[in-house]
Amino acid sequence: MPKDKLKIHFATTNRSKFLEAQSVMKEYGIRLIFLGKKGLEIQSDNLEEIAKQSAIASSTDMRISTIAEDAGLFIDPLRGFPGPYSSFVFRTLGCDGILKLLKGSHNRKARFVSAVAYCDPLHLPICFSAVSEGFVGTGTRGTSGFGFDPIFIPLENGKKTFAEMSSIEKNRYSHRARAFRKFGKWSIRSKP
Amino acid sequence: MPKDKLKIHFATTNRSKFLEAQSVMKEYGIRLIFLGKKGLEIQSDNLEEIAKQSAIASSTDMRISTIAEDAGLFIDPLRGFPGPYSSFVFRTLGCDGILKLLKGSHNRKARFVSAVAYCDPLHLPICFSAVSEGFVGTGTRGTSGFGFDPIFIPLENGKKTFAEMSSIEKNRYSHRARAFRKFGKWSIRSKP
Repeated sequence: MPKDKLKIHFATTNRSKFLEAQSVMKEYGIRLIFLGKKGLEIQSDNLEEIAKQSAIASSTDMRISTIAEDAGLFIDPLRGFPGPYSSFVFRTLGCDGILKLLKGSHNRKARFVSAVAYCDPLHLPICFSAVSEGFVGTGTRGTSGFGFDPIFIPLENGKKTFAEMSSIEKNRYSHRARAFRKFGKWSIRSKP
Repeated sequence: MPKDKLKIHFATTNRSKFLEAQSVMKEYGIRLIFLGKKGLEIQSDNLEEIAKQSAIASSTDMRISTIAEDAGLFIDPLRGFPGPYSSFVFRTLGCDGILKLLKGSHNRKARFVSAVAYCDPLHLPICFSAVSEGFVGTGTRGTSGFGFDPIFIPLENGKKTFAEMSSIEKNRYSHRARAFRKFGKWSIRSKP
């Protein structure tokens, strides 16, 4: 089957996340489709476990092949907070809450982690993880992206926050783009 | 069946939580047994949903009647944070993190909520919720209890934190004791 015909449903409700992943998947000739809903997510400190269970749930419910992604910002001086619960923490505390928690802290080391799980109704899920190492800035900067993008500066760039980058530039450094590229390479090898 | 013979397994890994619930259940002639493990918990803003799914999971896995409880501290000026993720937030930020987030805030209104779900392998779960209204103090006080007890002052007492109370006194005001009492009353009526 030619790769440019491959369609996969992305079980997410987050359109910004979808658009980032979609542009990466195009590099591999995969057409990603926005599902607008996602499978149940479990509580766990392990993003891969959350993504895999969610992919199983959506794939089983809808009887189609799906991708689920779970991502989180893990901040070293906050012992990995907000981690797997980044979405809830963004909705309640926002970027300002994180900045308040880090006030006076010299150590601002953090990493964004993404786990992309692919599942079809007949097989166990397969998962690809990737990391973007960086640090939390001292204020919010930029309006692109979503979530904690305005406070996260990837080490490889070292200056701009994710929210100050175009989507193309963000995809050069981002955890999500890297995890989706791992999936893309696997899909070319194994033709899901 | 005489009520003093009724045994129910409490699917929890938290021994402090178990001891609180056990002393309340004695009032209803129910012997609560510590299970030392719990069913998978889902991510949700709804404690009842989390408790019910967890009770279903443990009851189905072990083929016994189980109780699962989910509880959280919902802080008004933090838009309900840490809510359903109180356990993770306690492990990462602790009481000091909450106090830092509330620094300078006059509004410190908060509530502890508990949802107790009972499930047997043949029926759908039934859930009982209860609340303890109060506020977050300006520092930590007391060493009893667990979790956010040293910063939570129930309105009905208005002075002591939960961690400054004996377990008997805490059970007079606490969300958990109230939810377990609702379950106890139901169990007397319906003999599970």
